[in-house]
Amino acid sequence: MPVNLALLDRNDLLSVHGVRLGVAEAAIKKPGRKDLLVIALESGANVAGVFTQNRFCAAPVVIARERLRANHGTRVLVVNTGNANAGTGADGLRRTHEVCLETAKILGCDPEQVLPFSTGVIMEPLPVERIVAGLPRCMDDLREDNWYDAAHAIMTTDTVAKAASRRIDIDGLSVTLTGIAKGAGMIHPDMATMLAFIATDARVSQPQLQALASGAAARSFNCITIDGDTSTNDAFMLIASGTAKMPEITDAASVAFRKLQQAMTETSIQLAQAIVRDGEGATKFITVQVEQGRDEQECRAIAFSIAHSPLVKTAFFASDPNLGRILAAIGKVDVAGMNVHDVALYLDDVLVAEGGRRTASYAEADGRRVLSQAEITIRVLLNRGDASATIWTCDLSHDYVSINADYRS
Amino acid sequence: MPVNLALLDRNDLLSVHGVRLGVAEAAIKKPGRKDLLVIALESGANVAGVFTQNRFCAAPVVIARERLRANHGTRVLVVNTGNANAGTGADGLRRTHEVCLETAKILGCDPEQVLPFSTGVIMEPLPVERIVAGLPRCMDDLREDNWYDAAHAIMTTDTVAKAASRRIDIDGLSVTLTGIAKGAGMIHPDMATMLAFIATDARVSQPQLQALASGAAARSFNCITIDGDTSTNDAFMLIASGTAKMPEITDAASVAFRKLQQAMTETSIQLAQAIVRDGEGATKFITVQVEQGRDEQECRAIAFSIAHSPLVKTAFFASDPNLGRILAAIGKVDVAGMNVHDVALYLDDVLVAEGGRRTASYAEADGRRVLSQAEITIRVLLNRGDASATIWTCDLSHDYVSINADYRS
Repeated sequence: MPVNLALLDRNDLLSVHGVRLGVAEAAIKKPGRKDLLVIALESGANVAGVFTQNRFCAAPVVIARERLRANHGTRVLVVNTGNANAGTGADGLRRTHEVCLETAKILGCDPEQVLPFSTGVIMEPLPVERIVAGLPRCMDDLREDNWYDAAHAIMTTDTVAKAASRRIDIDGLSVTLTGIAKGAGMIHPDMATMLAFIATDARVSQPQLQALASGAAARSFNCITIDGDTSTNDAFMLIASGTAKMPEITDAASVAFRKLQQAMTETSIQLAQAIVRDGEGATKFITVQVEQGRDEQECRAIAFSIAHSPLVKTAFFASDPNLGRILAAIGKVDVAGMNVHDVALYLDDVLVAEGGRRTASYAEADGRRVLSQAEITIRVLLNRGDASATIWTCDLSHDYVSINADYRS
Repeated sequence: MPVNLALLDRNDLLSVHGVRLGVAEAAIKKPGRKDLLVIALESGANVAGVFTQNRFCAAPVVIARERLRANHGTRVLVVNTGNANAGTGADGLRRTHEVCLETAKILGCDPEQVLPFSTGVIMEPLPVERIVAGLPRCMDDLREDNWYDAAHAIMTTDTVAKAASRRIDIDGLSVTLTGIAKGAGMIHPDMATMLAFIATDARVSQPQLQALASGAAARSFNCITIDGDTSTNDAFMLIASGTAKMPEITDAASVAFRKLQQAMTETSIQLAQAIVRDGEGATKFITVQVEQGRDEQECRAIAFSIAHSPLVKTAFFASDPNLGRILAAIGKVDVAGMNVHDVALYLDDVLVAEGGRRTASYAEADGRRVLSQAEITIRVLLNRGDASATIWTCDLSHDYVSINADYRS
């Protein structure tokens, strides 16, 4: 059961002009579910993105990253779930190339204009024939109002589909943003998380779109963790179809850029938080906020140390205010010159510890009250500067173990 | 149920001349269990040790570390379980000083000659009165053949007591080593793990004893992890009573030093592995061996990345050879110039992957066979040097979650 995450409503997802989506059941891992997605773009669209830093990155990541760099003018994104095509060596690259070739053939574009994405089990050969067999059905299904099905077609262990949509005003013109994402384990993005695609009809130059992608990822997908494991297949793609009747955004200092940036970041945060809310086995949504640090890096290091601690996460699962575990997680981070006696720890608005110890005012009942909530903020004040960082994570429950002990079966 | 860890036999634990131990039930956390230990040393004994690097280290760690540095001639170690006296600020220091003062009074030594140790819940005030009330009973119980009870008196979530004992020959003279240790969670020592005490009757100078402690810790307690959490109270102490009729060991190049070093390291490894075998919820004992690296540091970084991965650990719990997760854990480590295509992965003697992919020879049945064992070796060959590192860990089971969700109750 995800934490405070409503089921998608098909009608809430706005179409983005110039972006058509088609899905199919290709029986990639098992039959009877949508597991193949094609996103077809009008010519003239720009695409930007960020990818996993994992050295065992998947074949599709290698190829998509290279093509994005070469900027061939992307016409189609092809996404399969059920198989990550990672840890598959040269054979994996060959198989992804085959999928791209077939996709290009059907769509009548250049294979270099196809960006491939895969998610699922690692180190299994990609079933190319089943994917190729499914492609024509995806093409038949292509339409702009198909985000709802697309969100479902990229799920793996996600229990609910994840999407976000909004409309903003730029210079009196209505601009749309709609995106989808999938989680739900192996989540500690070192760039973006698993797969997320956001499209807008805004006209944005390639460099500015890349700036938007990097900036939004830094404030959203790179601020979440479920289990500290970094996926081999992370990718976050921004698509600007450019069909809106507006001057192209080429200046990062312009009002239009900043408006789009804000909407993009908000959409990304919504999707990133949705991944945490539906984290494997999650029963609590936890915000870790570290403030008053010397720089953002030390704030992030401490926030992630807390967010990764299995002992903190199991205590939160049990609603047990065993809060010394948070101090231990702070103390294990190597921060030069940090004095633990300067640190203050809050649970929501409850002051738990300062001066290196539990405060006299703290009552166990207050801790228990906050921990019984589905949403909790851990706030750490370092008292040595004015930098801060916010990380979102979930608790560690029996279901996390069950899901990951059974994932392949 | 610990993994292949026999119950202690009282008769296997050899007395160390000059080292007396006494235990008591002091009801520190709850009544009806041995939770207080005093180790009394003859004058002339040397003590050395290593401590946690956690910045939120406990009051007893602050005091013991300082006293060891000042070298006042340690006469007694006092250890309580049930309360860590960590995250307790100035008040925590005051309480530990009070325990030391009372211990010194009863034993007729200087308070500076008392080394304090605590383990248990963090951020709760140390119940000084109950400890002080228990001290006379510990003193009455002091005897050299009391290691068995001592091993029990320092347990927290350990399911079995941990001790090791051996006798070696140095220059025709029999020398004894006996040690005890406790785990069982918050185990990722950055120095030593939770509490371990090893005593020998060998005569060793203070600097050489410190060298033995640091060296043994590096090869044993610093090579284990259960959950990646570093305790606030880690301490590993070496005691040399010096009662053996031998010349003092003052030279690290001597045969005597090397013999003692080997025995000390073996004893430490046995205790460190016992902690992993009895790790919270452990059902498998996993050796992670990374070879052919450029330096030990990169080998350790990769080994710990595997050993900390919740996804690897849950797959091992399930005996599911979902081995791509190991590649993902290797790939997330930032090792300059590492080419994943050079990496080979073995499970015991089964070659699983090389050239960046699963090998043709690998059969799922072989992986399943190895994973169904209680003891498994993950072997990673980096093919870029001749450094190596070995780390021991356990799997991640439902019981880990249960134990840590319930630990305080």
